[in-house]
Amino acid sequence: MELTNRELEMAERIRNIKQLSGSHSPGILSILKQVPEIALKVDACYLSNPYATDIFLSYFSRELIETGRIRDVVEFYPSQNRVIAGYLAKAVDASPETVFVSNGATEAIQAILQRRVPRKLLINIPTFSPYYEFAPKQTKVIYNRLNKESEFKLDSDRYIDMIRKEKPDAIVLINPNNPDGGFLSEEVILRVLEASKSVDTVILDESFVDFATLGSQPESPSMSGLCKKYRNLVLIKSLSKDFGVAGLRAGYAIMAPERVDDLLSNGFLWNVSGIAEYFFQLHLREDFKADYRQARRRYVNEVRSLHSSLRAIPQLKPYPTMANFVLTEITDGTRAADLEARLLVTHGVYVRNCSDKIGLEGEFIRIGARTSEENELVINAIRRSFNG
Amino acid sequence: MELTNRELEMAERIRNIKQLSGSHSPGILSILKQVPEIALKVDACYLSNPYATDIFLSYFSRELIETGRIRDVVEFYPSQNRVIAGYLAKAVDASPETVFVSNGATEAIQAILQRRVPRKLLINIPTFSPYYEFAPKQTKVIYNRLNKESEFKLDSDRYIDMIRKEKPDAIVLINPNNPDGGFLSEEVILRVLEASKSVDTVILDESFVDFATLGSQPESPSMSGLCKKYRNLVLIKSLSKDFGVAGLRAGYAIMAPERVDDLLSNGFLWNVSGIAEYFFQLHLREDFKADYRQARRRYVNEVRSLHSSLRAIPQLKPYPTMANFVLTEITDGTRAADLEARLLVTHGVYVRNCSDKIGLEGEFIRIGARTSEENELVINAIRRSFNG
Repeated sequence: MELTNRELEMAERIRNIKQLSGSHSPGILSILKQVPEIALKVDACYLSNPYATDIFLSYFSRELIETGRIRDVVEFYPSQNRVIAGYLAKAVDASPETVFVSNGATEAIQAILQRRVPRKLLINIPTFSPYYEFAPKQTKVIYNRLNKESEFKLDSDRYIDMIRKEKPDAIVLINPNNPDGGFLSEEVILRVLEASKSVDTVILDESFVDFATLGSQPESPSMSGLCKKYRNLVLIKSLSKDFGVAGLRAGYAIMAPERVDDLLSNGFLWNVSGIAEYFFQLHLREDFKADYRQARRRYVNEVRSLHSSLRAIPQLKPYPTMANFVLTEITDGTRAADLEARLLVTHGVYVRNCSDKIGLEGEFIRIGARTSEENELVINAIRRSFNG
Repeated sequence: MELTNRELEMAERIRNIKQLSGSHSPGILSILKQVPEIALKVDACYLSNPYATDIFLSYFSRELIETGRIRDVVEFYPSQNRVIAGYLAKAVDASPETVFVSNGATEAIQAILQRRVPRKLLINIPTFSPYYEFAPKQTKVIYNRLNKESEFKLDSDRYIDMIRKEKPDAIVLINPNNPDGGFLSEEVILRVLEASKSVDTVILDESFVDFATLGSQPESPSMSGLCKKYRNLVLIKSLSKDFGVAGLRAGYAIMAPERVDDLLSNGFLWNVSGIAEYFFQLHLREDFKADYRQARRRYVNEVRSLHSSLRAIPQLKPYPTMANFVLTEITDGTRAADLEARLLVTHGVYVRNCSDKIGLEGEFIRIGARTSEENELVINAIRRSFNG
């Protein structure tokens, strides 16, 4: 792929913005602020169900804006953590004392890493970078490499050997994993849990689980129920991606009651906003749940169809995914950074160049699914990028 | 004051709700949920400028709802802590690296207490209860009593002696103080700071400072500028009260850059919502600032006038205040709990019964100022309560 001068110049500017933003890809809004010439059509870097955003906004508009109730949620304090945990617990079928409401999953991740992992942490790579970035400074991070040759599947024998040998304080399983979308079956998770009884904390991050489907089951294959049996299991869940509401900062974790007590005795009293509280309350309502289920199904179909379209592009090798994105290797020698720049500058499509992901060797981009119209634009833009 | 049977029965129910809610007065919404018979007219327990809420809601409605920009702040991630600190710093005239953006002042209070006060904490009482509730378990809390006989004024000589003798890790000054509204002059604060150079952390909580006025000065008498000189000074500021937006969870702290770094290396990456970010951005705008200044002035006048009206009630002794509430002693032998119950049950007015405040002996209620019409209702309800 031979970039034009304009593409080269813009690629350079984007690279500089990225360097300043650390290990998180800069949001498209901050890129657009600094490079206003970009005519953005689709932000396929962003991992969020836009149909679910529509659902939340329609409830919000009807029930808070049109009625004037917005004043109450802005003017008054939200409920305290335990109160919100109480109604969330009903929605996710957990005991209230096992639920920790968090200001986005990030807050739960940071709190657990800071409080439970003083010495050693085992994570799979490639992974979601906060898991190593937010480990305490003195904590040793050990990496278990997932290989592209085996489609990033976890080799559970080798993994369990590693746990026995390294004796980490905590291990992290993201299911489905980010950035590859690989899914661990309940059987594998159970094997790991059984082998990890002397590990203080097993983090299972299910932030993308609502995009996974098993056979013809209508519900997502969450394994949150395992928290009842395994006292060292901490389940972390972002609600940003599946419900399309990252700006609300809403997530939660399920863990043994004494761990929730420990966190709450150290803060987190009023850690979500009044509007986030309204969102959490919607989870108890059949009308909202039915609307969400429909948005989920529709979106999951879009992801599957995006994956098929990517497979039909000869220069790409998309990996299997149960998440809402497709990790795609570029197999014709094109650099990921070049494809990223051309897509953004010439076609207005922003994808995630994964060159900076630790443990990922080769040229990879990650494409998040959007609406069907937007996905079509993305596919056409990629085809045209390769065809000059 | 002889309560009726109905008042007695309701008083009992309210007492039970309070016992369940811990040391924070239950919000009126949770009382109403459990005692729906109450016909609430004014929530004078709540400490927030309602005129400022109007201002925020008018910007929010015009700029986010009517334009559809609400979708962006809901769907996408807010900016990271440092970015928001960057524009807040401009608004409060501090260096960006000294600003820690927090999810309400509570988050900053909890973070500082947990990280900087391992051993001993000196606080004045009566005070805002989180300062002792959120101290680490092993930390010894030492109380310096403010006396009603001297109108809750700080005796700075005795206080400085106590600092020298006790050698606490941290001391807390709330200015104006909650629940009495007493104000410390810059001269006193400077004396304390000079005498506290060996104290690790001096917390100055200015959450109510926007309600204070000095002579004819148009701006609030914040002492945030002192952070530049005193490296152990941590200024904490809620924006819930002065801007009337507690539901947004927006606050900040100003402190030495290495202290901000320490906090951010332990979390707090995306700790405020997209709507809170919009609110922080408003602080940079001249139009919003002008509107807010007007709402502030109008409300401060209401507080002064509420204070005068309370002084004219023979059974009450209101203490001087520079905050947005009036701590009032009941001098005719009536119990604060009885007055609270009658006001709520018979007149629909909710005030804060301060019997549970550590360090406050006698019968006290705290009355938060609302709009002029609401304050008039409160005054009339109190008069009628005493007259049978």
